[in-house]
Amino acid sequence: MFIDLYQKTKKEKNSILCVGLDVILQNVMAEGREEALIESCLDLVEKTSDYACAYKPNSQFILFDLNIKHLQKLNKKIHKEGCITILDHKLGDIGASNHSALYWIKEAGFDSFTFSPFAGNILETTTEAHRKDLGVFVLTLMSNPESAWVQKDSLRNGVPLYLEIAEKVKESRSDGVVVGATDNASIEDIKKIREKIGEDKIFLCPGVGAQGGDAEKIIKTAGENLLINVGRTIINDAHPTDAAKEYSKLFNRYR
Amino acid sequence: MFIDLYQKTKKEKNSILCVGLDVILQNVMAEGREEALIESCLDLVEKTSDYACAYKPNSQFILFDLNIKHLQKLNKKIHKEGCITILDHKLGDIGASNHSALYWIKEAGFDSFTFSPFAGNILETTTEAHRKDLGVFVLTLMSNPESAWVQKDSLRNGVPLYLEIAEKVKESRSDGVVVGATDNASIEDIKKIREKIGEDKIFLCPGVGAQGGDAEKIIKTAGENLLINVGRTIINDAHPTDAAKEYSKLFNRYR
Repeated sequence: MFIDLYQKTKKEKNSILCVGLDVILQNVMAEGREEALIESCLDLVEKTSDYACAYKPNSQFILFDLNIKHLQKLNKKIHKEGCITILDHKLGDIGASNHSALYWIKEAGFDSFTFSPFAGNILETTTEAHRKDLGVFVLTLMSNPESAWVQKDSLRNGVPLYLEIAEKVKESRSDGVVVGATDNASIEDIKKIREKIGEDKIFLCPGVGAQGGDAEKIIKTAGENLLINVGRTIINDAHPTDAAKEYSKLFNRYR
Repeated sequence: MFIDLYQKTKKEKNSILCVGLDVILQNVMAEGREEALIESCLDLVEKTSDYACAYKPNSQFILFDLNIKHLQKLNKKIHKEGCITILDHKLGDIGASNHSALYWIKEAGFDSFTFSPFAGNILETTTEAHRKDLGVFVLTLMSNPESAWVQKDSLRNGVPLYLEIAEKVKESRSDGVVVGATDNASIEDIKKIREKIGEDKIFLCPGVGAQGGDAEKIIKTAGENLLINVGRTIINDAHPTDAAKEYSKLFNRYR
């Protein structure tokens, strides 16, 4: 089970840091760009893995230029360093297309992925993912302020959509929720989501670093099972090792 | 403008058929699979382009195994045959990740892409896409029945979410909406969406063929500007040319 892998890794690494591999290499010449991109990712893992529990490459940065063999290489490296991998894919298609994506996500060697609930099929996707021993993180309350009109202001049976999603996450036995660490999620919001999903699900929280989110707020409110993602602020630092160490220590102070 | 390209192509091809390139090659050996996948796509375009207005490859089927050079080759072939390309990407991320995706979608040579409004940023994404001369189709009312609890049963200001999305599509000057041709969208739903977005936007309607959708209903209700997608029923047919011809003629009978 993915949740067991998460628990074991968090303990061994003594870290709740997830490093977001949002590597931008659009300025590199087309020839050799694939190699430069994969090498850059591998190098970042090498430099930060002592302080990270998980790595989260984002499909919108890596999937167009890398193929399945590159992805396998990246996942192998992350696993060799004793960490978890999450494909930040925000998968949100109909059944047949989601099935195809799950095939490839597994084939590429990822442990888990992020899922967008817009198409409604949280249960179907989680069931299929668990058959393949893949963990599922469901977007619940995102970090960007423009998402509020959909996720907070839309009501189903009088309940905000993000809480209806949290309810489905529990029913569907998904592995976790994606909840932004920015102002978009208040302390009350975080508490309500945790109450709905129960203590055993994992909060995956982006938004700390470049987006200005508050790690202390989320760590002190969301409970034991969480991962805080830091992307650009670590990977674009001149010294990624020091940056990862600093964030990991900071997070542990609040735990 | 993408809408002009659509109008011109529809007229020249006398077709509103969009062929969904949902090619499954997971059973092919890993060695040589990339080549088999791209060749299969190119062959399908060759065989069906006399009867198609547009092609819609789906990211969940092609993006893990193909790289940017393959995608460029595919788009080049589709353009050579005088057709439009739509990447069925269901993009739905925060700004920085969406920007990266738009860079790659343009670089790969696509004319347009599908967008999921779950993250709320319809205006931001459309504005950036138009700067790159890319068309945007916004998921509005999907073809799968599991989507109803999010898209139809959730209300914002008392209005179902799919109509709030249609309103934003109009405000944001996006190019079209994705509306399933299945029972999920009633004649009333289709009429209401068209009323909201105006006559000049394009309905992109999946669900005909394998999903059992009703082309007649959508063509007679949605107005002049539309594309009907048929995927598996054409690409898995022993004679894709005949299948494409049949669907194109059928659609034209209802127009």
